[in-house]
Amino acid sequence: MRDLLSEYERLTAAGEPPGRAVVTSVWGSAPRAEGASMLATRDGTIAGSVSGGCVEAAAAGEIAAALERGTPRLVTFGVSDEKAWEVGLACGGTIKVFVEPEIRPEVLSAARGPGGEVVATVVEGPMVGGATRVREDGSVHGDLGPGIPHDAVRDAALAALRRESSTTLTLDTPGGAVSVFLEVFPRRPRLVIFGGVHIAVALVPLARLLGYRTIVADGRQSFLTRERFPEADDLILAWPEQAFERIGLDRSCYVCILSHDPKFDEPALKAALRSPAPYVGAIGSKKTQAARRKWLASEGFSEEEIARLHGPIGLDLGGRQPAETALGILAEMTAVRYGGSVAR
Amino acid sequence: MRDLLSEYERLTAAGEPPGRAVVTSVWGSAPRAEGASMLATRDGTIAGSVSGGCVEAAAAGEIAAALERGTPRLVTFGVSDEKAWEVGLACGGTIKVFVEPEIRPEVLSAARGPGGEVVATVVEGPMVGGATRVREDGSVHGDLGPGIPHDAVRDAALAALRRESSTTLTLDTPGGAVSVFLEVFPRRPRLVIFGGVHIAVALVPLARLLGYRTIVADGRQSFLTRERFPEADDLILAWPEQAFERIGLDRSCYVCILSHDPKFDEPALKAALRSPAPYVGAIGSKKTQAARRKWLASEGFSEEEIARLHGPIGLDLGGRQPAETALGILAEMTAVRYGGSVAR
Repeated sequence: MRDLLSEYERLTAAGEPPGRAVVTSVWGSAPRAEGASMLATRDGTIAGSVSGGCVEAAAAGEIAAALERGTPRLVTFGVSDEKAWEVGLACGGTIKVFVEPEIRPEVLSAARGPGGEVVATVVEGPMVGGATRVREDGSVHGDLGPGIPHDAVRDAALAALRRESSTTLTLDTPGGAVSVFLEVFPRRPRLVIFGGVHIAVALVPLARLLGYRTIVADGRQSFLTRERFPEADDLILAWPEQAFERIGLDRSCYVCILSHDPKFDEPALKAALRSPAPYVGAIGSKKTQAARRKWLASEGFSEEEIARLHGPIGLDLGGRQPAETALGILAEMTAVRYGGSVAR
Repeated sequence: MRDLLSEYERLTAAGEPPGRAVVTSVWGSAPRAEGASMLATRDGTIAGSVSGGCVEAAAAGEIAAALERGTPRLVTFGVSDEKAWEVGLACGGTIKVFVEPEIRPEVLSAARGPGGEVVATVVEGPMVGGATRVREDGSVHGDLGPGIPHDAVRDAALAALRRESSTTLTLDTPGGAVSVFLEVFPRRPRLVIFGGVHIAVALVPLARLLGYRTIVADGRQSFLTRERFPEADDLILAWPEQAFERIGLDRSCYVCILSHDPKFDEPALKAALRSPAPYVGAIGSKKTQAARRKWLASEGFSEEEIARLHGPIGLDLGGRQPAETALGILAEMTAVRYGGSVAR
């Protein structure tokens, strides 16, 4: 929904507040994932999409009907029925789409906010349209109604938030089966690099293309010039502990320790491994990493904490240019973020 | 050497033709790979590097001595002796560096050319400084001297060219052991995309950061606008066979087939799999790929030819945004290019 906010504001300001269709479940080779949204107004203006063009016309019709009716509805589309996605190759998919006549305030507020929350909406069963917001700290705001196991919704919402993918939860309740759509609004991820080395120079523009806010920290002024990092969002001249404290290492942070100097790498490692950052990688050969793990154990780090360290950093792509090393780092970071099968 | 050409021309035009030191072998955690070069003039101007700053001063001294002496020499540096790279962590390395008072015409010509060749230079043994050029078509230009098995040099040079990494070959000859440095000048790789879809839009800027020349082809004008691909080097409106013929699919081409429409995907697959392109990937689910492989077999493609197809395309990083899919594709392409361990 975030990607459609400006369209939403524009249409609403023009006096035609749009309704929305949002993909809540997919099976098979559906072209767009859960959470993909489409807006449509009464006069037929549309924005966004719920498929690769296969069912947009039908979805716009459903939104128009909902605007007329005033109530939301869950609709199923067989993508392969409407238009084969890859004619001649066995393929296709089915999607469920929640169609609502107006975008609920919970969704608008979450889409406008900094992220780190999930809007849980009943899309099937009694109480359709009821919503709560689950924040990353585990707090729940709102009530889905009686008979719905709120702890189960909260736990599933937090798991979906960690995976950064919207999904639908089906629950048995005394009143019958209930489907709850968990629409995820993740925080914008931050790439935190300690050490403004040549690999960092290559890593920043790649990470920006992937949507990361990029922060480079170093204790050495000469490594941290704007000339070296024209695109970085923040440059922080400090020792690791101070830098990480200023940044506020949290679950949105992907940390790369690249200084190649133990007087920075060692305190950076200690601070990062004790933070909630989902990714901590450090440069150095296998030999260096073995010594580093031994040192961390001697400093009182548990096996579990040490296992969080990705070192040698990055997937082994075989290339030796700085950009190739940076690519391997970003690929590993992404696989860890979403649980991709190439993640170690 | 390519990265230092403009410095070379500048220094030579100023009347101070520089000598060169080039890394020919590395052991341990040497900071720069084989082929890394550094220039230095008699008056002490330097450009480039052979290490991360550890042995540059000593290398400049060796170049000055070679300029004085007029003859090349192979020098060994212990990186850990000069300056520990990671103090406190067991690490370090040794490099061999070939120091020459003037840059040989073979090297200058290869560095200025389009690539696809290797300069083989004797760096140890009789005939030090003798050089030949090995082109990607297997032709050899020049003579390393009697007693040197030229077929072995050519085969090793072509293997190094395929890996795109310079290396040193040691040979036993009647006159004693000979070391031949194989300095690789690869062609600039080309990313050839058929299908100007949203993943292609995300892939082009990423590939450019990795040094690819990017070409997007499609039969559909609406997918192929300059607005969608502001950074692409070439846009080609044509059917796959015509597009690939105009491009001239060769060993420098990494081909991604993304159109999602069998009337384009199928001829594109046939043409790409029969070309010498080192990477051919095609979008589509596992089910689509299984059907596609069956179809290719029915069209007379051998198992070996079908095995060249990477489909589903890209490493599984788990992300679902277009940029994340593009990142997985580029990571897979890089791993195939250099034989990285994550390549399937």
